[in-house]
Amino acid sequence: MLIGGQPTRTIWATADGAVEILDQTRLPHEVVTSRLAGLADAATAISEMKVRGAPLIGVTAAYGMALAAGEDPSNAGMAAARARLAATRPTAVNLAWALGRISEVLAPLPPPHREAAAWAEALAIANEDVAACRSIGEHGADLIGDIAARKPGEVVNILTHCNAGWLAAVDWGTALAPIYVAQERGISIHVWVGETRPRNQGAALTAFELGQQGIDHTIIVDNAGGHLMQHGQVDLCLVGADRVTGSGDVANKIGTYLKALAADDNGVPFWVAAPGSTIDWALDDGVAQIPIEERSAREVTHLWGALEDGSLGAVQVSAPGSPAANPAFDVTPARLVSGIITERGLCTASVAGLSGLFPEG
Amino acid sequence: MLIGGQPTRTIWATADGAVEILDQTRLPHEVVTSRLAGLADAATAISEMKVRGAPLIGVTAAYGMALAAGEDPSNAGMAAARARLAATRPTAVNLAWALGRISEVLAPLPPPHREAAAWAEALAIANEDVAACRSIGEHGADLIGDIAARKPGEVVNILTHCNAGWLAAVDWGTALAPIYVAQERGISIHVWVGETRPRNQGAALTAFELGQQGIDHTIIVDNAGGHLMQHGQVDLCLVGADRVTGSGDVANKIGTYLKALAADDNGVPFWVAAPGSTIDWALDDGVAQIPIEERSAREVTHLWGALEDGSLGAVQVSAPGSPAANPAFDVTPARLVSGIITERGLCTASVAGLSGLFPEG
Repeated sequence: MLIGGQPTRTIWATADGAVEILDQTRLPHEVVTSRLAGLADAATAISEMKVRGAPLIGVTAAYGMALAAGEDPSNAGMAAARARLAATRPTAVNLAWALGRISEVLAPLPPPHREAAAWAEALAIANEDVAACRSIGEHGADLIGDIAARKPGEVVNILTHCNAGWLAAVDWGTALAPIYVAQERGISIHVWVGETRPRNQGAALTAFELGQQGIDHTIIVDNAGGHLMQHGQVDLCLVGADRVTGSGDVANKIGTYLKALAADDNGVPFWVAAPGSTIDWALDDGVAQIPIEERSAREVTHLWGALEDGSLGAVQVSAPGSPAANPAFDVTPARLVSGIITERGLCTASVAGLSGLFPEG
Repeated sequence: MLIGGQPTRTIWATADGAVEILDQTRLPHEVVTSRLAGLADAATAISEMKVRGAPLIGVTAAYGMALAAGEDPSNAGMAAARARLAATRPTAVNLAWALGRISEVLAPLPPPHREAAAWAEALAIANEDVAACRSIGEHGADLIGDIAARKPGEVVNILTHCNAGWLAAVDWGTALAPIYVAQERGISIHVWVGETRPRNQGAALTAFELGQQGIDHTIIVDNAGGHLMQHGQVDLCLVGADRVTGSGDVANKIGTYLKALAADDNGVPFWVAAPGSTIDWALDDGVAQIPIEERSAREVTHLWGALEDGSLGAVQVSAPGSPAANPAFDVTPARLVSGIITERGLCTASVAGLSGLFPEG
């Protein structure tokens, strides 16, 4: 997608055997690329959250293995690299998946052949992610087109939460991909961007993405979504997912459940965009079974951004000494989800719907 | 209530004919009192939000009339003072009400007697507010006591939103008064404090109040309330109100509606604490009829607090150039409200319930 009018991915290999990334710790205030010259840089980029978003973390780890294969392609060297990358963010499923996939490719090869194979496999993983996101975008844009057809000449108002855009993937994203494809199709769109406390990925990253792409949007506090729906200002809610149970319950960024309740109370469609890899077929009761990560209280009490002098820093907004709790995700029961947008098409949030599209699951 | 262990009000007259206030623009980071020596200081204190909260604004305006009567008690002087104070915050109903009441007392008096009468009337208005809040606290504490009786030996978990505490009034507050009275009665309480974006009155003021009073509490982002209710961690939601329709719809700080939806979805009682003066008998459809104030976008994009060097300042959290919308209140339909706690007792959120307690309305 575009930054400064130039098509950009979140990660790419350079001609001289390194990797470059957008440094997301500086966004939206500064657009800075960072060069990953070796394994150590790749590990640091993940652990310091210069890259974030489950798909992008997986791709970065794959490129980290390619960089490692250029340093020490021995069995011991590759095992050490895999262990080091796996430890960077313990909870990201895509990280372990990407490391497993690339290790399977490299293990049978003689060490001198591993570097070239690793670069090829990392690129394949990146390109597959782009293709899946693009396909989600096509199917989701059909849905947006249906709404646009019912209100000709009017803008389609879409509410989203958090950042499930291309900055969380390699390109296109999940929940924002349908918006980008709908834009290509000439559909008139306005996006309500929930700021997504505590980490403000909506106000910072989603708003940045949409602004760079020239899509009309307005940031709101998370509290405002229900009010807008009560007053007919939302035609569609569109969010991503961190995990979907086989029965269609959706774990996503904290606050998603509250938006789904408001959508249900006001007859607004509530759709979840997620690739098949997000489905956890072993689970059938999301609220009871999905463990919710509890993150640092400081994310609640302190906010990071641009100070008045242009430097980046933090401000404490809370009463000093008061404790804070920070559950990072919540679970929206399937009964509140209108449907799931996958790379294979649309389906209901149910065993029948999901297994119809993913019979191998 | 307590600050630094000392019983404190938000506003008081001094022995030498001035008024002192807690400067709420410095809270929670600094406890500073500010001296209002004359009418100009009182007007500035309201317009610059050194005092805030509808009851407290009304009381400050009343004291402002007393200060004005010490400067120029002529008819022209009093009329000018009333006009100046009325213009400080155009939307606060209590402001016009308090100015009207004190003006009615002063008008028939000869100018030399007006100053003493104005001080007495301002104190009466302040004391009546304290008594009404205390009464709301007693009735609400009965409700908390009922919940405590059903889970002996366990803490009662209460979720609140925004600041409807003593800092918004003279003492006790509305939604927090039942918590303070329950504490006096020895009931074990823990309060989940929603931070209340965009102005963070929960994280800043409610958490400060509760901390000073020694009440166990935890700040959460507004997004987290639904998740806590899904997991049985909330026994009662308790909020204030800016306006209640005769039919029981409740306008309150933006985001209140989302919490009410989650309470309804999880069988958690959702109670609103409000004095009878908050009821607008002319309205019967809050969502359609109550105008919602749209405030500055900067409240969404920038956050104010304590910087790392201890000074106070702002940080921009949003993507530069992205617009923001900022509706300040929302309306919770009566069907989602378990009941209203008033100074005359508890009632259902309905015409029958409210007019039963306030037959004169």
